[in-house]
Amino acid sequence: MKDYIQEHKERFLSELFELLRIPSISSSSEHKQDMYRCAEKLVQLLKEAGADRADVYETTGHPVVFGEKIIDPSKPTVLVYGHYDVQPVDPIELWKSAPFEPEIRDGAIYARGANDDKGQLFMHIKAFEFLCRTGALKHNVKFIFEGEEEIGSPSLAKWAREHKDMLKADDILVSDTTMIDEKVPSINCGMRGLAYLEVEVTGPNKDLHSGHYGGAVVNPINALCDMISSLIDEKGRITVKGFYDDVVELSAEDRAMLAKAPFDIEEYKHFLDIDDVNGEEGYSTPERTGIRPCLDVNGIWGGFTGEGAKTVLPSKAHAKISMRLVPNQNCDRIAELFAEHFKSIAPKGVRVKVIPHHGGNGFLTPISSNVYKAAARAIGEVYGIEPVPNRGGGSIPILADLQQILEINPLLMGFGLERDTIHSPNESYLLSQLFKGMESIALFYKYY
Amino acid sequence: MKDYIQEHKERFLSELFELLRIPSISSSSEHKQDMYRCAEKLVQLLKEAGADRADVYETTGHPVVFGEKIIDPSKPTVLVYGHYDVQPVDPIELWKSAPFEPEIRDGAIYARGANDDKGQLFMHIKAFEFLCRTGALKHNVKFIFEGEEEIGSPSLAKWAREHKDMLKADDILVSDTTMIDEKVPSINCGMRGLAYLEVEVTGPNKDLHSGHYGGAVVNPINALCDMISSLIDEKGRITVKGFYDDVVELSAEDRAMLAKAPFDIEEYKHFLDIDDVNGEEGYSTPERTGIRPCLDVNGIWGGFTGEGAKTVLPSKAHAKISMRLVPNQNCDRIAELFAEHFKSIAPKGVRVKVIPHHGGNGFLTPISSNVYKAAARAIGEVYGIEPVPNRGGGSIPILADLQQILEINPLLMGFGLERDTIHSPNESYLLSQLFKGMESIALFYKYY
Repeated sequence: MKDYIQEHKERFLSELFELLRIPSISSSSEHKQDMYRCAEKLVQLLKEAGADRADVYETTGHPVVFGEKIIDPSKPTVLVYGHYDVQPVDPIELWKSAPFEPEIRDGAIYARGANDDKGQLFMHIKAFEFLCRTGALKHNVKFIFEGEEEIGSPSLAKWAREHKDMLKADDILVSDTTMIDEKVPSINCGMRGLAYLEVEVTGPNKDLHSGHYGGAVVNPINALCDMISSLIDEKGRITVKGFYDDVVELSAEDRAMLAKAPFDIEEYKHFLDIDDVNGEEGYSTPERTGIRPCLDVNGIWGGFTGEGAKTVLPSKAHAKISMRLVPNQNCDRIAELFAEHFKSIAPKGVRVKVIPHHGGNGFLTPISSNVYKAAARAIGEVYGIEPVPNRGGGSIPILADLQQILEINPLLMGFGLERDTIHSPNESYLLSQLFKGMESIALFYKYY
Repeated sequence: MKDYIQEHKERFLSELFELLRIPSISSSSEHKQDMYRCAEKLVQLLKEAGADRADVYETTGHPVVFGEKIIDPSKPTVLVYGHYDVQPVDPIELWKSAPFEPEIRDGAIYARGANDDKGQLFMHIKAFEFLCRTGALKHNVKFIFEGEEEIGSPSLAKWAREHKDMLKADDILVSDTTMIDEKVPSINCGMRGLAYLEVEVTGPNKDLHSGHYGGAVVNPINALCDMISSLIDEKGRITVKGFYDDVVELSAEDRAMLAKAPFDIEEYKHFLDIDDVNGEEGYSTPERTGIRPCLDVNGIWGGFTGEGAKTVLPSKAHAKISMRLVPNQNCDRIAELFAEHFKSIAPKGVRVKVIPHHGGNGFLTPISSNVYKAAARAIGEVYGIEPVPNRGGGSIPILADLQQILEINPLLMGFGLERDTIHSPNESYLLSQLFKGMESIALFYKYY
């Protein structure tokens, strides 16, 4: 595939850039049309690559793209999952180049979605194109690209259940994660789940003058801070009642195996410009993001946030709070426990609303599976080093659903790097990873 | 004055409305020109009312209006203070009519500034007009209207020092506060001071994916909530080291006198739609806002606050935090203590910036003074009940400065009511209070 990439490089980049120019932000209703444009573009790319068919499917939300090439129904089938929707771009002022005007700087593509996940799903289309055009395709390949991953895939599980037969496959292949380092390639063998909620704390029924009322009326911002502060104890453990009930403690052996992945705490702190890390007592930093659950405030707002000073005692305060879950924790149950707990800790003088956003369960992929072995061999050959198994801290909730609906395991063969700062300003994707990813995927089919 | 009001009512309202239509928001630089328009309008009104002279004075910030009528330098002189700047109008969507398009509904004027302080300073101009035109003026009267009260009067103290001779007077008269109720008129004999600061908590140097980093890196929003939560203890006392050092405890006698002002806790809770009040242990609700200091978060923001869900672990979190102070607490000292304390409680893994906004000291006015007695008699006559002395929770920091620079006491003869919701959407001012205020002020000069 190396030569093929060399030959078609310019076209590859121009096709990918076209995809990146479409602002397919799933969380914002104003981009509804962009979602369709992006889906249509993917249909075109799949067909041009060699798919027998590719179509846009309506869902209750943003459309799904499905395409396939069936060479022989008796042969093994790989289902490739990816998502074409992207995160919002705020704070926009921190982008060095416009998020939807892709630009190559220092060997990397800078754009929203350059990595997550347009760049990574694009590798699959191009590896598939190579196999089709060189007559090397030995398996059936199906593609499913959704447009709602960044908002928790509210429609895909239902759609997948309705199209279960069409999606039938032996393995699910996904590139939507990172590897540890270019020099330390890795394959994710598990991901965390997610419960995401929004809370609203209401004190007085109107904004008040903080001079006239301050000191006598519960300030909903202060109350919200108190409540949030109480959610994590001094050992870094989440205080929501029942939160840890279903958490499976890893054996010393499992922890030792995962600790093999190299990790440099000084480099980590330097990369983030922090003087110290933090988290649950008794666990290492990779364990804190890999095998332990956590709770984070993703957003908070209330009162006067403009220029200058306004002496207001506000009526309301809000926060978005999410919990990362480990396999065996059920996201709906955790959302319920959180809502109950959060309401129970509200002080007198305020009312609390808890609105669940999306959620998803975590999952684990057996390292002994054929699909893992083929991926490890392919990556090992391209990178010149055997990849290490790893546990990802992020969540692709829909994968746990697909695993359950289709009764097959997803394999997370991600080529992103930490430096790509996905979800943040200046998201990027190294050209070297883009091309090595294509090569690895093409080789995967060889060893699968 | 009653007849005079009846006769000129329409003109009064049209003049006041003209004043209210000018969006003189001092905290926002885009309204710079509106400040001048408003100042010029006041000069015109003062001259038309009968002032010998009235002029706009430049300061380092927004302009000051000064006008006077000297009938005889040997007679007592009253200095009337007011401010023509107003609070911002956010959240604009909660206004029933446009904030700068005054409208009369149910006997009240609705507009930003209807009460605070355009409506209230207007009463002084019209009482003065009445006295001038009917030949009843027996004193010298000076007017000082500033344009920076809502942002802490950063320029007026310096300007007043430079114009000390021009401002020479025997008493300062101010209408910029509330009375307890139309049926329970009151005069403020003291106000709280203010220290207002903004804090910024920085964790990692960029927004991160909360899945990849959550649980291992200090989230600046969680840290900010922890820090804010620790600022008030379970007894409702502020934990900033040294905060209470200069607070003067009132005698049982003083507290008993202040407790004479009627206060209905059930009505108070009903008005605010809260199930309970809160505050410092051992003090009543009126004491908590009148004679005790407090701390409130006036605004908080950080992370993703848009529609939907974004799984971000943000780089920064911010809050605006203010403390109301009692007389004898120094606002600069308190701001310093706060900054020191807030930095000292920052956990590892974050950096903290504290930016002081404005501040001011509290003050007390003796009830035995002539100026208080004249005001009490005037209000008693107009309302048919003797007014009660009261302590205001708000802050007019500049009055403490003027008191010190000019060596005279301000008298707070306010006609606002709690229902006016100043600083909030739908600020209003009852026509009955506007006109009774004019009458009371005219009578004040009779008994002064």
